[in-house]
Amino acid sequence: MRDRLARSRAKLRPDRRFSMWLGIDIGGSKLAFALGDPRDAALRASRRLPWTPSGDPRRDFEILLTEARKLLAEAGAKAAPSAVGVSAPGPLDSAGGVVQGPPNLPGWRDVPLVDWLRRELGCPVALENDANAAALAEWQARAPRVASLVYLTLSTGIGAGLVLDGRLYRGARDLAGEIGHAPLVWDGEPCGCGRRGCLEAYVGGAAWTRRLRAQTPPTSRVAALAGGVAGVSPEHVVSAAREGDAFALVELERWNELLSRALVSVAYAFAPDVIALGTIASAAGEALCLAPLRERFAARVWPRLAAAVRIEASALGEALPFRAALVVAARAAGDER
Amino acid sequence: MRDRLARSRAKLRPDRRFSMWLGIDIGGSKLAFALGDPRDAALRASRRLPWTPSGDPRRDFEILLTEARKLLAEAGAKAAPSAVGVSAPGPLDSAGGVVQGPPNLPGWRDVPLVDWLRRELGCPVALENDANAAALAEWQARAPRVASLVYLTLSTGIGAGLVLDGRLYRGARDLAGEIGHAPLVWDGEPCGCGRRGCLEAYVGGAAWTRRLRAQTPPTSRVAALAGGVAGVSPEHVVSAAREGDAFALVELERWNELLSRALVSVAYAFAPDVIALGTIASAAGEALCLAPLRERFAARVWPRLAAAVRIEASALGEALPFRAALVVAARAAGDER
Repeated sequence: MRDRLARSRAKLRPDRRFSMWLGIDIGGSKLAFALGDPRDAALRASRRLPWTPSGDPRRDFEILLTEARKLLAEAGAKAAPSAVGVSAPGPLDSAGGVVQGPPNLPGWRDVPLVDWLRRELGCPVALENDANAAALAEWQARAPRVASLVYLTLSTGIGAGLVLDGRLYRGARDLAGEIGHAPLVWDGEPCGCGRRGCLEAYVGGAAWTRRLRAQTPPTSRVAALAGGVAGVSPEHVVSAAREGDAFALVELERWNELLSRALVSVAYAFAPDVIALGTIASAAGEALCLAPLRERFAARVWPRLAAAVRIEASALGEALPFRAALVVAARAAGDER
Repeated sequence: MRDRLARSRAKLRPDRRFSMWLGIDIGGSKLAFALGDPRDAALRASRRLPWTPSGDPRRDFEILLTEARKLLAEAGAKAAPSAVGVSAPGPLDSAGGVVQGPPNLPGWRDVPLVDWLRRELGCPVALENDANAAALAEWQARAPRVASLVYLTLSTGIGAGLVLDGRLYRGARDLAGEIGHAPLVWDGEPCGCGRRGCLEAYVGGAAWTRRLRAQTPPTSRVAALAGGVAGVSPEHVVSAAREGDAFALVELERWNELLSRALVSVAYAFAPDVIALGTIASAAGEALCLAPLRERFAARVWPRLAAAVRIEASALGEALPFRAALVVAARAAGDER
């Protein structure tokens, strides 16, 4: 590591620096890289690729670096980016720049990722948890007409990023917005986190996938789309529901019902102008998800709360991981919010 | 109103102004008034009195004004205060200075209280909901060692005031922190708000009082302290529990259990440094309430969340309504946070 640091430093002169921001989004099954132009915040280049973390964070880091450098090379960069932002799954310490051991990055226990990247790339680096980074990006896409936005990640796990009155709120030890683990059913289903009844144990992608693999009829359209019951996941439910499959529609309705209960709690707690929904809800879209969610939500909260809080799909869609990582890069560059 | 305005204005010259801040706390069954010294934020004089709102906000306002002027006169004021802060139950519009019809101020529908007071007293006036004002006061009592604090009012109703990273967060239309109406039990007990299963329908003072009046054994110590079952309220349970009464202890344990579930949700949502508990919890104290709540809380959340979030009684105790109203007066004086 030290040797490489010396080499990178030798290659770098401030005046030769590539004036782009580099954003890196680390997921449990994919990596995304983006180059953004600080002058107009435009997305100049991007790459997205599947990956499987190796269990060894140093090996994973080499891959990360190699793939990031490929994007820089493709874009004609001769030097390091001027700032790097990383969006990664929590728990993490954003101030210290340390990834603390997320369940879907095996072996990543107290990894000083910001230090590692700073040494390799010789520029300012910032780290943010993925839900927070996504919330900032979704908020920026709607500012200035939106003051407060709660972004819900609805993928393998459930988390929330909170932009309140235009500022990211992280809470003590970066723990705010862990609403995937607020109890939905007291002493209910066991959750991967070790507690019971968590929202995530009902509407998280991993929990839903387990349920689907146990309950999908082998002759159903859902099973056919997945090439067998053992491969079923929420995306097959969404596809089959689009074709009008009855089992898929009932499953999606159940998911909407449980998620709408969480939206009620989020609204009474935060009263944000917007609750923005990621992944599964974005993929399912208006007719199958957003409209039924809004209807259930409005029927269960005070009319003035229903009027104050809008439920929307992600505004950035496919571009979200890139935008989220670049928002963090902007922070690294000193463009603080 | 116009005539009195002209008279007050005539009596006032800026240079003769009494340099104190006046704080007014309006409750459903009591009024509290405080004079604070802007130089050192000391509480110079205070009054507290029971009242029953008349149903006519203009008549109530005359009483408010008369009682406020008594305090000013007692303190030797020759002129109006330099700023006035009002802490009142929600819903209200803090920016517009309008009380919008709280259930325990009958007839107070869209009352422009800030305008009325400004006309009468000829000085800047600010209005804040009581949970928010209390949260600011409790936060100030702990600053700078606490960044974020959630204050829970636990009286007739349940509400939360949110100071996040040192700033009051109100949410859209002042609706943030209405966690008394987040569902504790889906489709559970009916709530005074018209919905079902709200936290307030289980641990709110009004709901608990109804339950106690239906379930207290006529021969119990609780009934004896209250002079009969029909007069039982939570304070009698607290008193009887201190004497070791079995019925009271079971009732308090049940209340602690239900409240601890709400604390779990608050912690996962906000991860504040402190959750401060008002009225009932403050009155019941460490052994009967705070310690059992902490124990249940710690058993139900992630260890790192339990380590990050402290559960404390109000730091201001009896002085809270005065301090809360004076924090709002400071805001009126332009000492913005």
